[in-house]
Amino acid sequence: MIEDCLENVRSISPLIHNITNYVTVNDVANIELACGASPIMADEPDEAEDITSICNGLNINIGTLNKRTIEAMHLAGKKAMSLGHVILLDPVGAGASALRTNTAVDLMEEIHFDVIRGNVSELKALALGSSSTKGVDASAADVVSDDNLDSMVAFIKDYAAKSGSIIAMTGAIDLVADDSACYVIRNGKKEMSSITGTGCQLSGLMTAYLAANPGNKLEAAAAAVMEMGLAGEIGVSHLLPYEGNSSLRNHIIDAVYRMDGTSLRNGARYEVR
Amino acid sequence: MIEDCLENVRSISPLIHNITNYVTVNDVANIELACGASPIMADEPDEAEDITSICNGLNINIGTLNKRTIEAMHLAGKKAMSLGHVILLDPVGAGASALRTNTAVDLMEEIHFDVIRGNVSELKALALGSSSTKGVDASAADVVSDDNLDSMVAFIKDYAAKSGSIIAMTGAIDLVADDSACYVIRNGKKEMSSITGTGCQLSGLMTAYLAANPGNKLEAAAAAVMEMGLAGEIGVSHLLPYEGNSSLRNHIIDAVYRMDGTSLRNGARYEVR
Amino acid sequence: MIEDCLENVRSISPLIHNITNYVTVNDVANIELACGASPIMADEPDEAEDITSICNGLNINIGTLNKRTIEAMHLAGKKAMSLGHVILLDPVGAGASALRTNTAVDLMEEIHFDVIRGNVSELKALALGSSSTKGVDASAADVVSDDNLDSMVAFIKDYAAKSGSIIAMTGAIDLVADDSACYVIRNGKKEMSSITGTGCQLSGLMTAYLAANPGNKLEAAAAAVMEMGLAGEIGVSHLLPYEGNSSLRNHIIDAVYRMDGTSLRNGARYEVR
Repeated sequence: MIEDCLENVRSISPLIHNITNYVTVNDVANIELACGASPIMADEPDEAEDITSICNGLNINIGTLNKRTIEAMHLAGKKAMSLGHVILLDPVGAGASALRTNTAVDLMEEIHFDVIRGNVSELKALALGSSSTKGVDASAADVVSDDNLDSMVAFIKDYAAKSGSIIAMTGAIDLVADDSACYVIRNGKKEMSSITGTGCQLSGLMTAYLAANPGNKLEAAAAAVMEMGLAGEIGVSHLLPYEGNSSLRNHIIDAVYRMDGTSLRNGARYEVR
Repeated sequence: MIEDCLENVRSISPLIHNITNYVTVNDVANIELACGASPIMADEPDEAEDITSICNGLNINIGTLNKRTIEAMHLAGKKAMSLGHVILLDPVGAGASALRTNTAVDLMEEIHFDVIRGNVSELKALALGSSSTKGVDASAADVVSDDNLDSMVAFIKDYAAKSGSIIAMTGAIDLVADDSACYVIRNGKKEMSSITGTGCQLSGLMTAYLAANPGNKLEAAAAAVMEMGLAGEIGVSHLLPYEGNSSLRNHIIDAVYRMDGTSLRNGARYEVR
Repeated sequence: MIEDCLENVRSISPLIHNITNYVTVNDVANIELACGASPIMADEPDEAEDITSICNGLNINIGTLNKRTIEAMHLAGKKAMSLGHVILLDPVGAGASALRTNTAVDLMEEIHFDVIRGNVSELKALALGSSSTKGVDASAADVVSDDNLDSMVAFIKDYAAKSGSIIAMTGAIDLVADDSACYVIRNGKKEMSSITGTGCQLSGLMTAYLAANPGNKLEAAAAAVMEMGLAGEIGVSHLLPYEGNSSLRNHIIDAVYRMDGTSLRNGARYEVR
């Protein structure tokens, strides 16, 4: 159950190896601590295997990638796979440069990812080889809405089947699917898109959920999406009239810090298709 | 008009490529989002040209530079120039090391910058080949005041003429000039110098203003300075008795998030010389 | 006296060169500014000696190290040593990978550190060649408590004698010792361990204290620990019911910004053994 996914993170306190961009790395570390996990960041090839070996899960985020960190991603990913650790890919900016798209594709060829989490533009770039990405943000043309929900659910189930990974596509409506079931999640607030790195934070949080719930990955991934969305709703509710995106960032991480299984269960808004 | 410069950023939502230091990069991303722009950070040479090609403006900040990122700065700068994008240089720490001074000089030889934005010590190091820099902060000996205002206005107009760039020199009094006109701006609060990266944030914000107002660059650069200073005044007004520089950082970005053209016009304090 | 250590930082405003990880670097810069110091971050070998030459102290933190930054650590450390600057080592994650342990050992062979500051797992890894580290956090098996206090005091005095450095071991109870005296400090709150980088922040703060109190290093190091712990207590006292680790991070830096010598003296809880 959803609440168990959260409580397992708090009781197990998984150690997560993050190879992630330097833009939002501090927020990723703090949200992992907020949910009860323990983060470690390491992107030097010479220690990538050592570090991932002592961890319970691996979060690979390709924002601000470079040749050195790409090498570390491959080394850590192969090691984590050999150890049976959960592994998540956040293909930040796939479609925005050949390097990012190719890096994501290369990683997916070599490493089995339990979850691939991105926005619709990034996932379309990977699944279809093209998209209308706007940098690291989703293009307006791609947004999931009730009008195209059926086709988007079909699209990500299909991509989950082809990739062999759970696909988590986040946006105004969030979809988390394997080849047979899709969580359609309606938590969250539009103001979250005015904060850098809510997606990166979610990827870090989700890796902690996966590591603490290895036998129940689809529900764990969905629960992480619900928690992030609910934390956004709580965060917006605490905004003072003069506060904006910087305070909202703090309120969201704070809400994750305070959340327990009961409040997550009560606040989660989703259906399974 | 000043207010139009702000409103254009919100309506156009320019995508800004930032090659910037890892100290303040999160705040740069959040302030660009706060003003209505969309940031992307990328400093790997292999993708620098791709990324800048999909953007509307380029912000080069040499703090925490390294050989790899310097190469990316050159590649992105030349590509952005060939595409007619606006380009800003923030010569963080010029004068503090030979590498920083030389990198700024090399970039200026190869790339035309629409604006060079720095503190007085950095700009003196570039214009005069010497300064009394204190690391990345301006030396007290260099501060612009009413006593030396006439000579400083003459200095930066002269440097604007020689460099062919708009010069934005920020400090207690801010000066933004081309070869014929200088905005003398008196917004801001001294507490802003206790936050790391208010200068970096302003450079990111200013690049968004330039990208959204390409036909009106001098006024756009000045408007960005006014917004940052006014946000500082608003931020200080919201400080609780026990709050300090970390909260002020949030308040400032929040104030940018909330600001509209009318409040900017009403709060701006400047003259043109 | 303790309060003088703080006031000296404010009056001297030392410039600190930090080679530190990109996870918590922004908070390190802001806490150094909060205490009255001035930070500069630079990790490119080509400028490491130049930058450290204009500074008053050097803070080397091995989190998110890579081959390039390791080279910069050695160059800056040797230069700082030749200039008589204070130098601090924060061996983040020593024991978690061979690269981190070996890098710390190599640095200690080549550079004399005035202070080595870490958690108990990191310091045991360096002193004993083994530990039960949990990534970058101390293992529960290693925690200093009243039950093992005598033996831990003996351990760090012994390690101080062997290494020739002041040892600062921080945790539930903080110990700061040279070979003959050990400060046992009981400031701080357990919630601080839910924030990424309180240790990194303390190392930055402590380097500023050392640089401003070069004739009184043991007391200065202890005073920095007391200030950080007291700031944590003040920070927790300001937490609203819905606030968590992200807001606490801000409250702590804010408390350092507001603290003066009198409040530090009145709030410090310690004995010398």
